[in-house]
Amino acid sequence: MAGIAVFALEGALAAIEGNLDFFGVMVLSFATALGGGVIRDLLINATPPIAIRDWRYSAVAFAAGGTGFLFYDTAAHIPSGLLLTLDAAGLALFAVAGTEKALDYKIPPFIAMLMGTITGAGGGTVRDMFLNQVPMVLRADVYATAALAGAAVVVGARKLRLPGAVASILGGVVCFLLRMISVWRHWNLPRVGLP
Amino acid sequence: MAGIAVFALEGALAAIEGNLDFFGVMVLSFATALGGGVIRDLLINATPPIAIRDWRYSAVAFAAGGTGFLFYDTAAHIPSGLLLTLDAAGLALFAVAGTEKALDYKIPPFIAMLMGTITGAGGGTVRDMFLNQVPMVLRADVYATAALAGAAVVVGARKLRLPGAVASILGGVVCFLLRMISVWRHWNLPRVGLP
Amino acid sequence: MAGIAVFALEGALAAIEGNLDFFGVMVLSFATALGGGVIRDLLINATPPIAIRDWRYSAVAFAAGGTGFLFYDTAAHIPSGLLLTLDAAGLALFAVAGTEKALDYKIPPFIAMLMGTITGAGGGTVRDMFLNQVPMVLRADVYATAALAGAAVVVGARKLRLPGAVASILGGVVCFLLRMISVWRHWNLPRVGLP
Repeated sequence: MAGIAVFALEGALAAIEGNLDFFGVMVLSFATALGGGVIRDLLINATPPIAIRDWRYSAVAFAAGGTGFLFYDTAAHIPSGLLLTLDAAGLALFAVAGTEKALDYKIPPFIAMLMGTITGAGGGTVRDMFLNQVPMVLRADVYATAALAGAAVVVGARKLRLPGAVASILGGVVCFLLRMISVWRHWNLPRVGLP
Repeated sequence: MAGIAVFALEGALAAIEGNLDFFGVMVLSFATALGGGVIRDLLINATPPIAIRDWRYSAVAFAAGGTGFLFYDTAAHIPSGLLLTLDAAGLALFAVAGTEKALDYKIPPFIAMLMGTITGAGGGTVRDMFLNQVPMVLRADVYATAALAGAAVVVGARKLRLPGAVASILGGVVCFLLRMISVWRHWNLPRVGLP
Repeated sequence: MAGIAVFALEGALAAIEGNLDFFGVMVLSFATALGGGVIRDLLINATPPIAIRDWRYSAVAFAAGGTGFLFYDTAAHIPSGLLLTLDAAGLALFAVAGTEKALDYKIPPFIAMLMGTITGAGGGTVRDMFLNQVPMVLRADVYATAALAGAAVVVGARKLRLPGAVASILGGVVCFLLRMISVWRHWNLPRVGLP
């Protein structure tokens, strides 16, 4: 739930900076926080998606987004380091939980890793598409890749028959640290440099 | 079905003004008229969506879109007041029907309101994204909010144990009137004014 | 599987030309090759989609996309005629297979034709939307229309009680030839010419 609130707040700030109105802010709060999980649930056939079946998910997202709208001046001054850290923690939580849910639904491990990645990075992708931008995760930073690494650790640890809690913690730590280090060191993924 | 035709015609006009070809006009007719309902059905697990299970929905959408294509000069001269009124009526129908369908599928009332809103406003959102624009409903006007208000009235009236037909009519009237008044008075939702 | 590889390679090239990073190249390879089939499977309720249930589909897409990334200089010099021909063959395969799968799932024939079209042309549409462009299939060329024609032939041949294999081959040949001729003759669909 804390992860949902952080992602929703970030969605609200992006919406406000995109000059959307209050309804747009609410939509982007929902989409950023819950879009990844909704897509994952549709793909693994866990329907209706949990964010549709249980009203508390969207209530948290709307509350966080509404807070960002009402107190934008304060929210815009949250230190970026704090927001990045909270976001990395949310990413780790989402990636691990998404991978485990896909495994529970008998999705092959390789695909379960992709589902964890979508859970973590899908919401931001939907947000960027609503704002008519090429999604940031496709262009720069080590973000979805950190989610993928965490998901891979979860899958690998389970293959090694480590206890589930250990797999979760290991995966979450790897995702979080990889994300934080990559921000700190300004890492980017390789690309083909066109002239 | 009348609502589908109006929405499809509006999708066709937007497609033509976006310089799409005949296939693009047909896709936008379908997406504008039926996209909201398809997304709702996927989310509430009423699958396959009714617009996929029953060919008459898309036939109406394509017929209206094709008419808009063939007789663009006439269609483009439909008085904007008439088109706005028909669109508001379609929005009211879609919002009420979408909310009721979600309730029938045991979706929590709060989420059912969102499903009614998506049914009404989702098609236009998809249309705008195909045309590479930030969706209008996120930016201006009281459109999705009117759908949400109508959906809330349906949910509220049912909670008060009013007969289903009364709940539907009340919800539809509220949505329609709120939409018409907001156009007439040039209402917009609040936004955070960035310098 | 050959069709998946061709579409994935085209997605990778588009991603590289859009200056995406390695993760973006992988996402567009997957989306271009498998996006149409995933959307079809969600719509016809064949869930989880085959590309999620069976890891080999995405493995082929990632392998082809990764090859395009590593050997971009070579891939970018594949003669455009060869790529167009392979793409037309992939389109024909996807359109026929998508139509038949929809019919197997008891989707009405008219809608099954649309599902075949989405299978063939949906991936490229998703790719263009990720790259923040109005999808090419909505604007120019005879592409989705060729898929639709092939799908219609499959449906028609089955109505005439021709053997399934004959229907498939006829549909595939019609789609392939229509696509190739339309490229050669620079055919476009009609549009309403706005001043």
